[in-house]
Amino acid sequence: MGWGSDFSARVASRDLTIGVIGLGYVGLPTALGFHDAGFRVRAVDVNEQVVARLEAGENPGDDPQHDDLIPAAQSDDWRVSTSYRDMIPDCDVVLVTVPTPVNTDLTPDLSFVRAAGASVFGSLTKGARTVVVLESTVYPGVTRELWGGLLAELELEEEVDVELAYCPERFVPGDPEHGVRQVPRVVGATNEDVGEGLAELYDTLTSGGVTYVGSIEVAEAAKVVENVQRDLNIALVNELARIFPSIGIDVEDVLSAAATKWNFHRYHPGIGVGGHCIPVDPYYLIQRAAETGTPAELISAARAVNRSMPGNVASDIRSILAANGVVQHDARILLLGWSYKPGIADARETPAEPLAQALRTSGMSVEVWDPYVDPAELPVDLVSPLASPFESAGFDMAVVVTAHDEVCDLDWAALAEVARHPLLYDGRRVLDVDAVAQAGWKLYLLGSPF
Amino acid sequence: MGWGSDFSARVASRDLTIGVIGLGYVGLPTALGFHDAGFRVRAVDVNEQVVARLEAGENPGDDPQHDDLIPAAQSDDWRVSTSYRDMIPDCDVVLVTVPTPVNTDLTPDLSFVRAAGASVFGSLTKGARTVVVLESTVYPGVTRELWGGLLAELELEEEVDVELAYCPERFVPGDPEHGVRQVPRVVGATNEDVGEGLAELYDTLTSGGVTYVGSIEVAEAAKVVENVQRDLNIALVNELARIFPSIGIDVEDVLSAAATKWNFHRYHPGIGVGGHCIPVDPYYLIQRAAETGTPAELISAARAVNRSMPGNVASDIRSILAANGVVQHDARILLLGWSYKPGIADARETPAEPLAQALRTSGMSVEVWDPYVDPAELPVDLVSPLASPFESAGFDMAVVVTAHDEVCDLDWAALAEVARHPLLYDGRRVLDVDAVAQAGWKLYLLGSPF
Repeated sequence: MGWGSDFSARVASRDLTIGVIGLGYVGLPTALGFHDAGFRVRAVDVNEQVVARLEAGENPGDDPQHDDLIPAAQSDDWRVSTSYRDMIPDCDVVLVTVPTPVNTDLTPDLSFVRAAGASVFGSLTKGARTVVVLESTVYPGVTRELWGGLLAELELEEEVDVELAYCPERFVPGDPEHGVRQVPRVVGATNEDVGEGLAELYDTLTSGGVTYVGSIEVAEAAKVVENVQRDLNIALVNELARIFPSIGIDVEDVLSAAATKWNFHRYHPGIGVGGHCIPVDPYYLIQRAAETGTPAELISAARAVNRSMPGNVASDIRSILAANGVVQHDARILLLGWSYKPGIADARETPAEPLAQALRTSGMSVEVWDPYVDPAELPVDLVSPLASPFESAGFDMAVVVTAHDEVCDLDWAALAEVARHPLLYDGRRVLDVDAVAQAGWKLYLLGSPF
Repeated sequence: MGWGSDFSARVASRDLTIGVIGLGYVGLPTALGFHDAGFRVRAVDVNEQVVARLEAGENPGDDPQHDDLIPAAQSDDWRVSTSYRDMIPDCDVVLVTVPTPVNTDLTPDLSFVRAAGASVFGSLTKGARTVVVLESTVYPGVTRELWGGLLAELELEEEVDVELAYCPERFVPGDPEHGVRQVPRVVGATNEDVGEGLAELYDTLTSGGVTYVGSIEVAEAAKVVENVQRDLNIALVNELARIFPSIGIDVEDVLSAAATKWNFHRYHPGIGVGGHCIPVDPYYLIQRAAETGTPAELISAARAVNRSMPGNVASDIRSILAANGVVQHDARILLLGWSYKPGIADARETPAEPLAQALRTSGMSVEVWDPYVDPAELPVDLVSPLASPFESAGFDMAVVVTAHDEVCDLDWAALAEVARHPLLYDGRRVLDVDAVAQAGWKLYLLGSPF
């Protein structure tokens, strides 16, 4: 059981029991992937509904890719439970895939990582050398500090009772080319043999390659840096989307021209950055740097730019309404899309919410149509959910928030007919400018002079 | 002469006379390239020595690639002069490739662009519709504002006497794969026909493809944005190179791990950013944004980080000396490399200079060995030039400033023997750590804890 010199052979013969803690958008495909690869899987979630649906062989999430993969019944190869005590003692390796959101004061909320760690460590068999791997995004040092503290409390010893490791998930929601079975992974572990063994194990899950990169802290840092770099590059094009219109230039023309250079990275300006990673992870690093007194001013500046975008768009909207003689506090705004990226229902940290807040603060009423997001999930104190954009007859301005195909392919001529003012703001630069103008809209583009 | 509906046919038959103003690292290969492509070339430089050497068929620069290309004598196909009046009236197209440095107050110095423009416009034939193309890096709006003003003063009219265009150079010094004959180009022009015609013309110079991108301002902006993005990404890894050692992690381990992700951009931290573009161009955009009251805080923050690097390295050096019991105001520091990038002599905006200044301010004496840079070009009030690093017997610390092959491949064991203290700081992360330690050095790495 657990770590041993025969680990590599047991990976090869699929003779390992893998625990997966947290059956969300990362944990569920991971559990299914290892089951599919031939390992015994023990899946745990604190949500009884999730477990009940899985016990019934049903998909508890909204990704239809999993429908055909979910085992119809429990067996020695597939067990699901809300109980750590029932599942963990069996496991050789436990993968923890719980969320790490930010608190309202922008500090990282590690409560799920702490709780999951406490439950796993409290349930494992002493002396079994169970390998416990964190996959959640954390700032460098968290795995050791947080879980190391728990081990001390429980009088568990590393290299005797437990082996700790870190293997950040790199899954891209809604992108079938970058699911858990495709993405390259990195593994950090104190013990090099454990790191190499886990790399072999994850190699059975993903075709993207797995690299043992050294300490847990290096792997933790790598994950954060990936998202920090993305946040920074998006922030740059967003800052440019403010500068260029002020001097009469469309930012998209500039970025397309620059993209003809071999080493230019093409990013797209927009209403803001959402999701569980990019708007969140930089704060982890900013906090860690602040603790040691090292400046993180560039990373902080990037965050500030991206956070300012919903407010900038609200400001654009106020200017456009004024220029068209629409009284601001009577205005009805129709937001097209709510989730943070196209094709999925995920609304975590969506910039649509601060945008709606800013519009409401200016006295406007806000209606939302998103073909993916369950209307019950929308903040009804802030916005009115719609089952169809055509329900919003008499609106003054429509705003493309999320570039869902269903938004881009709307019957724009029909929608213009139900508008009080056919004003349209493309916050994602995805509309066919000529076609939309022909459909009767007065079109405004984020990052373009107006 | 000049622009006409037959321009495309004249490109195809090479029946055009191309003027090139400024025969530096861009203008000379451009003039040679168009000559080689079969056009008549008129090359102008204000420097009499440059012209005299070219008249003698000699290479006036330090790039040996040009040696075999320089015509041995003037002919109708190749004329060189210091006189605009002798050369410009012949030209159909004039390319201006003069430097655009920054002033000491960090505002762009446009005096060369202004002077070259005045001389070209003052010499061209009225009514000839001469196409005048700026290649120098400028912020968006400069070509039209600066040159447009000159045209008005000289009572020259666009589309009658002159056609203005902008085609930024993208040449990479020291990189034979990205010379003027290989790089993709963009062309901006008010008149679409002129833009497309120039794209055809430049297509005879470069294999990289040429795109007409719209207005002059879009092409100006694209060039600046390319360098701003690079500055930003380098600034990020430099900021990380400060944060990670403070929490016990080597930044290079983190960046290598992150680079296993498909969409990560691998940049390298270092002593600072040099050259004529990346440390300079962001100020152009910052100034333009400031004029319109738009925030450019992210771009400014990136500049601040990169400018702080020489000072950070000086601070590392002071700490290392102190930790090794070397009295700071007696210390002798040997800088290995002075130019801003490997393999070339170019020392414009090199971070070596502010580093040397910071060390001098701390009372240290600074010696410099660079196998490429002419010792006469070094600031002798600040540093002592050396013909060989071994001349510096008795130094207390050597610092890798530029990753020239000649620096990396030094006889490290022999150099350690002439040191008073064998302390070595790798500011470019290029040394073989084990080999150098074995050669007797105590090695310190930028971005790694010590």
